[in-house]
Amino acid sequence: MYDLIIIGAGPAGITAAVYAARKKMSTLVLTLDIGGQAAWSGDIENYTGYQFITGPELAAKFEEHMKKYEVEVHEGEEVIGIGKKENTVLITTRKKTYEAKCAIIASGKRSRQLGVPGEKEFKNRGLTYCATCDGPLFAGKDVAVIGGGNSALDATLQLINIAKHVHVINITDKLTGDPVMQEKVNDSDKVSVHNNAKVISVLGDKVVNAITIEQGKGQKSIAVQGVFAEIGLIPNSEFAKTIEKNELGEIKVDIYNRTNIPGIFAAGDVTFVPEKQIIIAAGEGSKALLGAFRYLSKLK
Amino acid sequence: MYDLIIIGAGPAGITAAVYAARKKMSTLVLTLDIGGQAAWSGDIENYTGYQFITGPELAAKFEEHMKKYEVEVHEGEEVIGIGKKENTVLITTRKKTYEAKCAIIASGKRSRQLGVPGEKEFKNRGLTYCATCDGPLFAGKDVAVIGGGNSALDATLQLINIAKHVHVINITDKLTGDPVMQEKVNDSDKVSVHNNAKVISVLGDKVVNAITIEQGKGQKSIAVQGVFAEIGLIPNSEFAKTIEKNELGEIKVDIYNRTNIPGIFAAGDVTFVPEKQIIIAAGEGSKALLGAFRYLSKLK
Repeated sequence: MYDLIIIGAGPAGITAAVYAARKKMSTLVLTLDIGGQAAWSGDIENYTGYQFITGPELAAKFEEHMKKYEVEVHEGEEVIGIGKKENTVLITTRKKTYEAKCAIIASGKRSRQLGVPGEKEFKNRGLTYCATCDGPLFAGKDVAVIGGGNSALDATLQLINIAKHVHVINITDKLTGDPVMQEKVNDSDKVSVHNNAKVISVLGDKVVNAITIEQGKGQKSIAVQGVFAEIGLIPNSEFAKTIEKNELGEIKVDIYNRTNIPGIFAAGDVTFVPEKQIIIAAGEGSKALLGAFRYLSKLK
Repeated sequence: MYDLIIIGAGPAGITAAVYAARKKMSTLVLTLDIGGQAAWSGDIENYTGYQFITGPELAAKFEEHMKKYEVEVHEGEEVIGIGKKENTVLITTRKKTYEAKCAIIASGKRSRQLGVPGEKEFKNRGLTYCATCDGPLFAGKDVAVIGGGNSALDATLQLINIAKHVHVINITDKLTGDPVMQEKVNDSDKVSVHNNAKVISVLGDKVVNAITIEQGKGQKSIAVQGVFAEIGLIPNSEFAKTIEKNELGEIKVDIYNRTNIPGIFAAGDVTFVPEKQIIIAAGEGSKALLGAFRYLSKLK
C-alpha cells in the first residue's frame, strides 16, 4: 500500500513526484516513458528560468530532479485501469494491481497523427505538433498548418506574426474555427487557405522542404520549411473509465485538481485545464500533489 | 495603447511577460519590485528542473529571461486602480493612467507580519513565512509555528516529519483548523501546543535561537532554531475594486484565468487558485497570457 501512485512521468507527474518525495510520502510512479512530450519538444525558450534549453535536455533535468529522491519508478508499465474500493485506490497495469491511499493521473496527451508518408521521418525536423512551442523557430519561413478548426486557426494567427507565408490545409469546404479568427486569417495577405484539401505526404531531404496535397481530383506540391499538424490531441485517459471527463475525453478537475472520485487527482495535459505547455503542466503537478497531501492529512 | 499591461513581476507576471514577448504583443509591466516573493525565498529545491537554487538566484534568472525580450518594465510604479471603458482597460498608478487592450493582474500576496521585535532582523535567518518552501531546511531542529488555523496546522504536520520538535503558538483557547488535522497534531508526541499564547519577540544572535511568548499573566522563552509565521497572507488586490474576489480578497478566475471583467485576467498568488508555490504561479502566468492572447485574437 503506497501513500500515492502517480500515473505518468511528464512535467506534471515528475513535479508531483518531487513534491511527494519532499513530503516523505511513499510514492510509486507508473509510466510508459520519462519526460513525456517535453522530451520530444524542439528548442524551448519559454520555461521560465531557462532562456534556452532543448526538450531532451529539459526532460533529462526533470528526470535527474526526480531521481535525486527516493521515488520508485516503474518505467514501461502501462496502466489499464483505475478504481476505488473503500478508501483504497486500485491501479491495474498489464502486470498486476497496485494499492494506494491516493493517486494522481498525469498521463498526458498524444497528438493525433497525420498518418501520411514522411510523418515519422520529419517529426522535429520541420514537422511539429505545437505552434506555441515551436512557432518562433520558423521566423521568415514558409510554413503549412494542417487543420481548419480552432487550434489550426490559433496556430495560423500565431504564425502570421512570425513566418513569411502560411498555407492552411483544410480538409472541409470552409474553416470551422471561431468566426473572428476566421476573418483575421482570411484578411491576412500572408495566408493562403486551401479548402477541400488533404495532405498526402510530407517531403524533404534532411529537413522538410514541401508537402503534397490532394485537392479535388488534382495533386500538387507546396514548398514549405515547416509543417504544423493541428488536427487535434488525444488525452491518454481511456483507462480511467469511471473518472468524469469532458466531451474531448479530458479529465475534469476543480482548482484543487480533484476529480469526481475522492482521492484521485489529475494534472497536466490529460485534464481539461487549457494549454499544452511544460510550465503549466509542472505547476498543475505541484498543485495536484499538495491537494493529495492535504487529502491524506485529513484521511482518518 | 498597449496590447497588454501586466501588474506585478513575480513568477506569474514574468512568465506572462516572456510569453507575451514571444507572441509579439506590445507589453508594459508595472511593478513595485522584480522577482516577487521568490526573491526572498530561501533555498529552493522544488522548482522542477533546478535541483537546488536560492530564491534570489532564481529570481535573477527570471528577470534575465524577461529582459532578454523587448518588454517595457516600470519598476517601482504602484498601481492604485484598474477599470474598463468600452474595450479599453485603464490602469492608474500614482503617476498616470495607462491604456491597454487587456491586462493581467499578477500582484501577488504579502505575508501578514507578526509585528513583534526581532521580526525584521531574523527574516530568512530562521524566521520564515512558508513551511512548504523552507521546512526541509530545519531537519532535526526545534521550531515554532505561530498560528492555530489551517495553514498553521498544515505547516505543523509538514514539520512533524522533519523537525525534532514543533511548538505551536496559538493565540486562542484551542486550535481552529480542521478537526482531523487537529487530532493528528494533538496525537503527535513531537508537538507542544501552547494555547492562549502570543509571541511577543523573536530572539537570536546571527540567527534565531528563541522566541518569547506571553501566556496568561506570565512570559516565557522557548528555545527554537526556526520560526514559521503562519498567521495568514494578504492578497495585493485592494486596487482592483471592481474585480470579483472571494472572502479573503483573492481574485476569482476561471480555468482560463479570466476575471469577471472581459479582458482582465489574473494569475498567481493574488488569485484564489490554491498554494503559494513558484512553479504554480509561473504556470498560471503562462495560462493567463495565452488566455489574454486568445481574447485579443477574437477582439474585433
